[in-house]
Amino acid sequence: MSENVASLVNKDRLWTRLMQMARHGETPAGGVNRQALSTEEIAARRDLIDWGAEFGLSARADPAGNLFLRLEGRDAGAPPVMSGSHLDSQPNGGKFDGVYGVLAALEAVQAIKQSGEPLARAIEIVAWMNEEGSRFAPGMMGSSAYAGAASLADILPVCDSRGTSVAAALKGLDAAFPGLPLRPLGGPVAAYVEAHIEQGPLLERKGFSVGVVTGMQGKRTFRVVVKGETAHAGTSIRAERKDALLAATAVIQALAAAMHDAQDIVKFTVGRLDIKPNVPSVVAAEATFSIDLRHPDAATLRDLGDRVPVICAAAAQPCKLLIEELVSAVPLQFPVAMRELVRESATALGIKTMDILSSAGHDARYLHDICPAAMIFVPCKDGVSHNEAESATPEDLYDGTRVLAQMLFTLAH
Amino acid sequence: MSENVASLVNKDRLWTRLMQMARHGETPAGGVNRQALSTEEIAARRDLIDWGAEFGLSARADPAGNLFLRLEGRDAGAPPVMSGSHLDSQPNGGKFDGVYGVLAALEAVQAIKQSGEPLARAIEIVAWMNEEGSRFAPGMMGSSAYAGAASLADILPVCDSRGTSVAAALKGLDAAFPGLPLRPLGGPVAAYVEAHIEQGPLLERKGFSVGVVTGMQGKRTFRVVVKGETAHAGTSIRAERKDALLAATAVIQALAAAMHDAQDIVKFTVGRLDIKPNVPSVVAAEATFSIDLRHPDAATLRDLGDRVPVICAAAAQPCKLLIEELVSAVPLQFPVAMRELVRESATALGIKTMDILSSAGHDARYLHDICPAAMIFVPCKDGVSHNEAESATPEDLYDGTRVLAQMLFTLAH
Repeated sequence: MSENVASLVNKDRLWTRLMQMARHGETPAGGVNRQALSTEEIAARRDLIDWGAEFGLSARADPAGNLFLRLEGRDAGAPPVMSGSHLDSQPNGGKFDGVYGVLAALEAVQAIKQSGEPLARAIEIVAWMNEEGSRFAPGMMGSSAYAGAASLADILPVCDSRGTSVAAALKGLDAAFPGLPLRPLGGPVAAYVEAHIEQGPLLERKGFSVGVVTGMQGKRTFRVVVKGETAHAGTSIRAERKDALLAATAVIQALAAAMHDAQDIVKFTVGRLDIKPNVPSVVAAEATFSIDLRHPDAATLRDLGDRVPVICAAAAQPCKLLIEELVSAVPLQFPVAMRELVRESATALGIKTMDILSSAGHDARYLHDICPAAMIFVPCKDGVSHNEAESATPEDLYDGTRVLAQMLFTLAH
Repeated sequence: MSENVASLVNKDRLWTRLMQMARHGETPAGGVNRQALSTEEIAARRDLIDWGAEFGLSARADPAGNLFLRLEGRDAGAPPVMSGSHLDSQPNGGKFDGVYGVLAALEAVQAIKQSGEPLARAIEIVAWMNEEGSRFAPGMMGSSAYAGAASLADILPVCDSRGTSVAAALKGLDAAFPGLPLRPLGGPVAAYVEAHIEQGPLLERKGFSVGVVTGMQGKRTFRVVVKGETAHAGTSIRAERKDALLAATAVIQALAAAMHDAQDIVKFTVGRLDIKPNVPSVVAAEATFSIDLRHPDAATLRDLGDRVPVICAAAAQPCKLLIEELVSAVPLQFPVAMRELVRESATALGIKTMDILSSAGHDARYLHDICPAAMIFVPCKDGVSHNEAESATPEDLYDGTRVLAQMLFTLAH
């Protein structure tokens, strides 16, 4: 029966849809720039709704801009099984990050529908709003709002670099889909399964097409503002300068030296740095930068993160500092029963798996707080992601989707 | 006779005009944002033209966007004496940098006109286009084009950060002054005198209201592009990253350590730094920064500048580098006779002077190449400039203007 479901997963249809989605925001270098709530992401949502409608799925949106496609089950009042990911990308993103999880869920549900097997409860395919956090920070906005970790009051006023708020961008989304029914934010979920490319090299190196995600490393992010004073580049002497750019580079170097281990497990990144007034002949008055710090061990992450303000203060002289912690997400482990179910679903299909820790954050982080959650990883070429060169094979994507179909059916039938 | 000219300089009129000019682009913090060819700078030009017209000066523009106001002399064909500076400011500029030199020249010429003394040759007040170089780089565009150090083909295609070219901005300038006669670019100049705030602390500390500028330190500027590769902040391991931001901060720290002397004579500044894609969770693919290096000694400047590529290359690993030198201006000394004339003009008015080296660049650098040039400095509070807190006293500005009037009269009568 359930083997029947997985056998109905259509490799070509999945691949064709992925390539069609990759046109929304495609870049000359073969990547994707499809940031949250952009015209391009709205076009991707439209495709998803249309594809679901073709086999009878009804779409709904919630006030956080999350999009749900529902295959009804016998008990309409029972909490649904959910599966999905996100359609938004980084500015220089690839064709698979996020969108794979949404289209794998669509394909799995389409296979289940086609099988004619009855479901005890509904399955909902979900595209979470703004997972990436590159247009509006922080990321995982939609899933965190759904799970109650953030409120609408937290996310609606957040503005992008052009001053457009999430609230305004959501109005644009509503306007694009005038007939789309609305559902309330949140609600009980029976289980959540998210398929995703690994974004690391391990599955490919060890030759597995499917990884059972054991958990996620923790993450702490900070915004650091270094306050100096403008001065004339040709006349002011160094001893009297308060050069925010020079202080920021010293701070970043000091942090990079400290946030490091021989095993290369600590992940420390300063990806954003903005200078004011940012003029060649003027000593900088202000430098603002991001810190993204991740580690799988809770105690290590806590200790490293707690050292951030100390290291910054020591290196910022003679400038002043403002440090704000934006995200503090502890490492998490998915329930053993859910991991076991991924493994069993794969085994039933003759697919071998390996256990793997997620180094990246995913929407499953927040769903884990409100229901049994699991993740299925598939390999991506050379582990490259958040990069236009991101690549994955139709075969691996197919294997992951078959496992997902098998597992969703088990959870919902 | 000439003492009569200086006595007609009107301290209140000068101050009132400076304060009126400070409204064009005024900032909440009391400074000025009046960048080259902006609406605000065009408004400042309009005031200047109107004030000159009130006592009979005719205005003309040239194809580089320089603005000239002419007081005619007996011999209309003789090369004029020129005096002026610039009306544009830094984004966080002050009320006196540049605009003082233009309004001091206007005031001096008005006093000469009022005296009724005949002139042998014309005096032209000039406002050079884009001295600051903050909107369009490099600076001193108008004066370098006038002197032939740059051509129109060099400057017209330069774009600001919004993609507006100098050519397009100059069309906007023309449209703002439809009746303004045009003159050809360049032409012989009998002598050039520029008054300016010191932008350093020496005159104030030593108690002089007027400084005789001996010359200018040399300047070399570079643009450095550090090329890395985007990668996922949560998954890519440090050993395999090519982090352009981290490499750029290492390069800047290495440069700052090397471009330094115990006497604090070397001026080294990185004022601009731009990151791509500049997203918190993405390892940076590219970092572009400016280097502004100045020194009064030609050999030292040459040696330090020549070390820039070597130091950059050593510190940028594993990223790649592109280094472009934008400006290479040797230190210069103004002619002894012109410096003597500043001193004598001051002495005749009972004003004591000190010799002083200009640490900043000024339009006089380029005029020095084509005619005898001089500069008159007046103090500014705490030496602060390129800063909204820039400040100067009516008395010091008055002294500088009287010396300028005396000197322009001597040169032109």
